[in-house]
Order: sequence, then structure tokens, then C-alpha cells
Amino acid sequence: MSIDSQDISRRHSLAERVVRDAGRLAHNYFTRRDSLVIEIKGDPQDVVSIADRNVETLIRDQVAAAFADDGFLGEEYGLVNGSSGFTWVVDPIDGTSPFVQGMPNWCVSIAVLHDNRPVVGVIYAPCHEEIYSAASGEGATLNGVRLELGTAKTIRNAMTGIGANHHVTPAAVGKIVSDLLEAGGNFVRLGSGALMLAYVAAGRLVGYYEPYMHAWDCLGGYCIVKEAGGWHLPFPTAGEGLTRGAPVLAAGPGAIEDLQRIAGIDSGDSAAA
Amino acid sequence: MSIDSQDISRRHSLAERVVRDAGRLAHNYFTRRDSLVIEIKGDPQDVVSIADRNVETLIRDQVAAAFADDGFLGEEYGLVNGSSGFTWVVDPIDGTSPFVQGMPNWCVSIAVLHDNRPVVGVIYAPCHEEIYSAASGEGATLNGVRLELGTAKTIRNAMTGIGANHHVTPAAVGKIVSDLLEAGGNFVRLGSGALMLAYVAAGRLVGYYEPYMHAWDCLGGYCIVKEAGGWHLPFPTAGEGLTRGAPVLAAGPGAIEDLQRIAGIDSGDSAAA
Repeated sequence: MSIDSQDISRRHSLAERVVRDAGRLAHNYFTRRDSLVIEIKGDPQDVVSIADRNVETLIRDQVAAAFADDGFLGEEYGLVNGSSGFTWVVDPIDGTSPFVQGMPNWCVSIAVLHDNRPVVGVIYAPCHEEIYSAASGEGATLNGVRLELGTAKTIRNAMTGIGANHHVTPAAVGKIVSDLLEAGGNFVRLGSGALMLAYVAAGRLVGYYEPYMHAWDCLGGYCIVKEAGGWHLPFPTAGEGLTRGAPVLAAGPGAIEDLQRIAGIDSGDSAAA
Repeated sequence: MSIDSQDISRRHSLAERVVRDAGRLAHNYFTRRDSLVIEIKGDPQDVVSIADRNVETLIRDQVAAAFADDGFLGEEYGLVNGSSGFTWVVDPIDGTSPFVQGMPNWCVSIAVLHDNRPVVGVIYAPCHEEIYSAASGEGATLNGVRLELGTAKTIRNAMTGIGANHHVTPAAVGKIVSDLLEAGGNFVRLGSGALMLAYVAAGRLVGYYEPYMHAWDCLGGYCIVKEAGGWHLPFPTAGEGLTRGAPVLAAGPGAIEDLQRIAGIDSGDSAAA
């Protein structure tokens, strides 16, 4: 399907507006989180609340009002196919565990795909009042200030983010940690993969690795990392790939090879990104 | 040495004032961190800057002006013994790595010991504008609101903080992660042990474990956790213990036994705390 830059920039503008509204609503729930009913999803550590659902609905409604023919995939309500060639991929609250426990490490993540490729990424961390934003070919910004990654940071002089969930065995997660430390690296885990990907784009983390994530967790961050000058593993967005999970790896220019090695990923994959 | 509650409360008041001044100075450096010269300490991942040193000097000077006979131990300039029975134990910036990388997960930590026992603990996280504060027998607060831990949270329905540094082998850190996940737990690592201990006191984390920490990293947090109704492993503050490291474990009431087991700590130790 043909695409012009207006098609992308109109969606980019909407994404930046919607993410603010969504973040405000989520933060309102956050301030009264003690009264939220927390439900368990598959695993006792995987939780959801009315906050996640209503924030997704807010985003879905605003997108449908502006671009009725766009597809929409949200973590909580799944995929509705569109006919415009554009699909919005949304995690209303990434880092629900930190959110319900009262930690500030959570965010709203919005990506827009065109023909399965992320062309817009917007992430808002309300507790820190930070908006990360990018559109294909337009560069990346944090609160309007341009993000540009250099080569000076490596896994040995900076920190690497990691993530885990019940799709990955405890032994495999332990091995990622010990391999990273053995290589002279250092790790953080904030509890929100999207936020850590945004931190990669901002040069606060030199990379992020999680062996299994969903499209809504990573595609917004991937777009921002790429536009900031970083690298990411391709995510299989075609067909059922969009609703299934896949390994997620993103890195600043000085950490790509080390993190590919630790993740056991063939560096030939990088050529595809 | 005899002690009355006035002796403690005067120092508690000063600690609350000083931590604000220290946090403001640290945050000022944080906003212009790109111009800081970062020095490597023992290990390439263990860094320090003029910010750490000058924040410690600010605290040291204000304490000396008010309580000239108190001892003072800071991470950067070491121990000066006093004669009053009180010793201040200070980490000017806990989480220097997140600080220099531009992440908000760092804090100023101040403890006051009397006869080797923490009687005051104050932690300030400037990026989040949060002050955690406690004095022996007076309870703990976050921005003035009382903190009280209940028994409902366990390692299985809440998150546990972990820490690591070059004193601990990569394999040992990997094993902590895999053991915790295997037991149904979930982990975060924010990069500041003092901040994660404060989060334990606030019920945001159900516990914190790091196999080796120094007194300045943990004693402020320990005081706050205990006053909030949590438990912590005793820290060897007598003699050289104060300047050497030791294992650090703190937990809310519902996570003590699980975390003692994961840390391989004899539960008999808990009776001593």
C-alpha cells in the first residue's frame, strides 16, 4: 500500500496527544491504586486491573475516531484488523507490577505499524513526566530534545536492562544475568520493558534484552531506539507473529556485538534490521 | 553511654534538613551530569564523581557544625571517630551508576548510630521528591505519611529487590535470580540498594537482598524498614564491621522466611535483629 509522509505525521501527532491523555488517566488510577481490584492473568506475577483496560479503551476510542480504517492491537482487548495498511499496537500500562506495587517505573507505549513495520513510536512515563517520541526517518526525541546515540558506551562502562516473565525458565534468566556480569556488564531490571527500551534510546541503558516479549511491549520502543541511532532485532510482525511473542534485543552502537553474543543471537540477524 | 530521646530527635531533625540540602546539590549536578568527570574506583562498573564528594562534604560540614563530638563515616572520605556515642553513616549518592547514566533511581542516605545501633534513618530520592524518614521507636514516614507493613504481601504476589557488585561472583548473582524465580518470586534491580530498602519500608518491594553491601548503603534503609514494621538481618557495626561489608537482607512480615531460605541465612539470625 502506498504511503506518504503526511499519513505518518498525522498519526504521529495523534499518538503524541493520545499518549498524554492515556498517561494522565493511568496516573489518576495510580494515585488511588489501593482501591483497584487486581486480577491475576496466566501467572500469579502477571496482573491486570481496570486501569489497564480503561486506558486501552481511551486510546482505542481516540484512534477509531480519527482513523476508522486503521487496525488496532492492544494488550488487553486483542487485535482488530484494519484496511488502511496502518495498525496501532498499544500497551496501555507497561510495567503493571511496578504500577500496582506503587513504583514509578511504568509507562504507556504506542506504536503505529505500516505494512508490519513500526513507523511511529511514543512512550510516556507519567511519574517522570517524560515523553519519548519518534517517527520513521524523523529522528527521536525526549520531551522534545533530540536523542542521538554514540559509540562510547559499551556493556562494560554502562548498564544493560534485562527482563523476564513466566515464558522463560528461571535457569535461563539466571544465565543471562551471570553471562552479562561475567562479560564485565552490569544490569538493571525496572519492571517495564518499554521503559527500558526508551532508556536505551536515551543512552541511559546501553541495551535491553528479554528472551520473550509481545509486540505491544516492544514495538514503540524499537521505533524510538532505531531513530535514536540504535539497533534492534527484527520483530516478526507479519501474520500471527504480531500476537505471538519473540526475543527482544536492542542496543546502542557500542554494545551490539556483545549483547548479540550474550543473547546467543546470530549476528547475521542484524543485517535484517 | 546514656541516651535520651532529645538526643535522637535533635539529630533526626538535622538529618531531615541536611538530606534535603544534600539532595538539592546532588540534583543540581545530575542536571549537568554530562560535564562531570567520572572516575573509576576498584571496578570499571564502580564509579564516582565530584558530585559524590561534594555532597558528602556538605553533609559532613553541617553535622560537624551542629554536633562536633559525633563520629562520621561517609562512603567517599571514610571514618572520623567521635566521642558522643553517635556516629553518622552517609552515602552521599547511592546509585552512582544510574546517576551518571541519567536514570532517576538514586538517592541520598543518612543513618545515625548510637552505640552501633541505627537510631535514625533518612533517605531522599530527589528525582521523585520522596523523603523516607524514621527514628527509633517513632515509626517511619514517606513524605510525612506513616508507613506500616502488613503480612499480605509475599515473594509470590509482590516484587523483590536484588543487588550485586564485584564482591559477588556472577554465578552467585545468577543463582539468586533463578532461585527467586523458581520459588515463584519476581525481581527488580534499580541500581540503588538504599532506594530499594526504602521501597521495602513503603511496601513497594516485599524484600531486598544483596550478598555484600557496606554500612553506608544499608543502615539508613534498615532503620526505616524496621520502624515500618519490617525485619532486617543484623549488620555488624561494631569495630571494623562498620567499614567492612556484610550480607544485607530486609523483608516485610510476609516474606521473611522465603527470603532467608533463598539467601541461605539461618533463621536463628532473625532473633538477633
